[in-house]
Amino acid sequence: YYSSQVKKCTLIPGDGIGPEISAAVQKIFAAANVPIEWESVDVTPVRGPDGTFGIPQKAIDSVNRNKIGLKGPLMTPVGKGHRSLNLALRKEFNLYANVRPCRSLKGYKTLYDNVDVVTIRENTEGEYSGIEHEIVDGVVQSIKLITEDASMRVAEFAFKYVIENKRRKLTAVHKANIMRMSDGLFLRCCREVAKKFPDVKFEEKYLDTVCLNMVQDPSKYDVLVMPNLYGDILSDMCAGLVGGLGLTPSGNIGLNGALFESVHGTAPDIAGQDKANPTALLLSAVMMLRYMGFHDHAQVIETACFNTIAEAKYLTGDLGGKAKCSEFTNAICQKVASK
Amino acid sequence: YYSSQVKKCTLIPGDGIGPEISAAVQKIFAAANVPIEWESVDVTPVRGPDGTFGIPQKAIDSVNRNKIGLKGPLMTPVGKGHRSLNLALRKEFNLYANVRPCRSLKGYKTLYDNVDVVTIRENTEGEYSGIEHEIVDGVVQSIKLITEDASMRVAEFAFKYVIENKRRKLTAVHKANIMRMSDGLFLRCCREVAKKFPDVKFEEKYLDTVCLNMVQDPSKYDVLVMPNLYGDILSDMCAGLVGGLGLTPSGNIGLNGALFESVHGTAPDIAGQDKANPTALLLSAVMMLRYMGFHDHAQVIETACFNTIAEAKYLTGDLGGKAKCSEFTNAICQKVASK
Ligand SMILES: CC(C)[C@H](C(=O)O)[C@@H](O)C(=O)O
Ligand SMILES: CC(C)[C@H](C(=O)O)[C@@H](O)C(=O)O
Repeated sequence: YYSSQVKKCTLIPGDGIGPEISAAVQKIFAAANVPIEWESVDVTPVRGPDGTFGIPQKAIDSVNRNKIGLKGPLMTPVGKGHRSLNLALRKEFNLYANVRPCRSLKGYKTLYDNVDVVTIRENTEGEYSGIEHEIVDGVVQSIKLITEDASMRVAEFAFKYVIENKRRKLTAVHKANIMRMSDGLFLRCCREVAKKFPDVKFEEKYLDTVCLNMVQDPSKYDVLVMPNLYGDILSDMCAGLVGGLGLTPSGNIGLNGALFESVHGTAPDIAGQDKANPTALLLSAVMMLRYMGFHDHAQVIETACFNTIAEAKYLTGDLGGKAKCSEFTNAICQKVASK
Repeated sequence: YYSSQVKKCTLIPGDGIGPEISAAVQKIFAAANVPIEWESVDVTPVRGPDGTFGIPQKAIDSVNRNKIGLKGPLMTPVGKGHRSLNLALRKEFNLYANVRPCRSLKGYKTLYDNVDVVTIRENTEGEYSGIEHEIVDGVVQSIKLITEDASMRVAEFAFKYVIENKRRKLTAVHKANIMRMSDGLFLRCCREVAKKFPDVKFEEKYLDTVCLNMVQDPSKYDVLVMPNLYGDILSDMCAGLVGGLGLTPSGNIGLNGALFESVHGTAPDIAGQDKANPTALLLSAVMMLRYMGFHDHAQVIETACFNTIAEAKYLTGDLGGKAKCSEFTNAICQKVASK
């Protein structure tokens, strides 16, 4: 019945707790009859013919072929010269927009009740350019790079996101009072794109102001678009408002595909002990389903996950419960199977 | 009695509500018999002999002579080329460390109960270098500048601050996983200075992690030291936790003097209407008194201010009350006079 529309999807289980939370997602997807065939790949860097380390070609080919992937947490290789693997993947696949929705979860209480914001982060340049020099001893410069191309691309993505997801407002976050030229360019691009979307309410705010207002009243904001480093900061801060990185999904959207990932760490201290919380990876997988057009499956799984947390019968240790990862996973499976 | 130790102090009343909150501080200082003589100056930029605009020489001379100043909010001049006056002052007087304590105020309820953190911000370089180029059309670079001199200076200031103020811990905040050379240099300087202060508990944290943890549990942190832009963000975020910029003081410490200031805006909408809240400027003035060694006066005024807010009888509009600035000010004056 489904076979004609079965889609292949690359899975990068990752390190530490990665394999067990990936297995949990696969189990839930199977219980929900999601028409996806997983292609599991390893991205541990290998030494290439030229002697440098890089992502294995097999993994690259898989993502390029499937144009869609799900990724668990990756260890950052230690040692000089090794850049973060997460960054290498963003670069390799030109994943230009990072989308992180943060929503209050019923049943998991924090200081904030009704958080519902989405940060959209330029994912390829800014302070993440990787260009740095020591000019003379003790004087270092890092280049923050802002281009019209990347800024237009992410701004267009953000406005479309607001429309497609029926959101109410887009806020461009910047420090153009300080970085007049670079953040100024980013801002001008947002304004330019805004003209094409007259129905989207658009505003501009300083990063420091957004941080201040966000902790006082998150309902002031809806969808926010910003340069790379600001997105790194603001997305983590917003995740903090709703319970941390174990509960928030993330999607990296590229020109030729997309990679969804949990952004928490590898938690080596509890790895292999059936204690990890798969929620962040599962909600990232739900984002992936929506991106692929599987809206019904996405809805069923998301609801099952939210309800399992709200019932608070099977919560993992990070949420104050005593359940194993497998118990939490089974509870979700039962809910999706009964649909 | 006091005359021999009367000290002169420059006052920059500022724009908007600046003059009325400055007058409030002067009134409270008089009621508390603080042995300070104010020298009021205007910093509105004037055109110099070379045609460019700059801070009036009289104001510069006053600060250089007195080596101590209190400053209300300043309007940022509109128009290209005009840099922020706040930045010009930091630069002119080499104010290398910006200190912003954020403490929960009894009587002013927020979501957080026991915030007590101090951000110490490098105040002269980083993304605030002011060096930017458009390399080709649509490609802009801004230089983030980190030097050993400025990093050592602010790190030493921070460790000393922890000791002198009997605080418990210092956290260096960075993104050296991304900006390995620039933030790496900053971090190495902190480590270097840490060796000279073995009694101070020292830790290093990523900026995004600090943002996430801070909104979940501010008691995780105590004193934090960081490059310029991170301090801009984190200090505003922390101010948000305790009620905003209207309640938090700020001090800029320099090689040859110090400038204390409220960091909120000029609030032109309520200017001249006796509605403004002078708390941030008053608490900045209290920081100034401690810096000058007037610890007893500082204590009396601070306690009077906190108690007036805790009693909640005379609160200004921003705190949910109906009192005029002058009523709030008089309430504090009565408390300090009865000491
Ligand atoms: C792991 C690190 C390189 C990364 C970043 O700084 O972007 C992380 O914080 C994130 O937000 O994905
Ligand atoms: C007004 C602005 C230039 C300034 C800054 O960015 O430093 C302000 O936000 C601050 O924190 O003092």
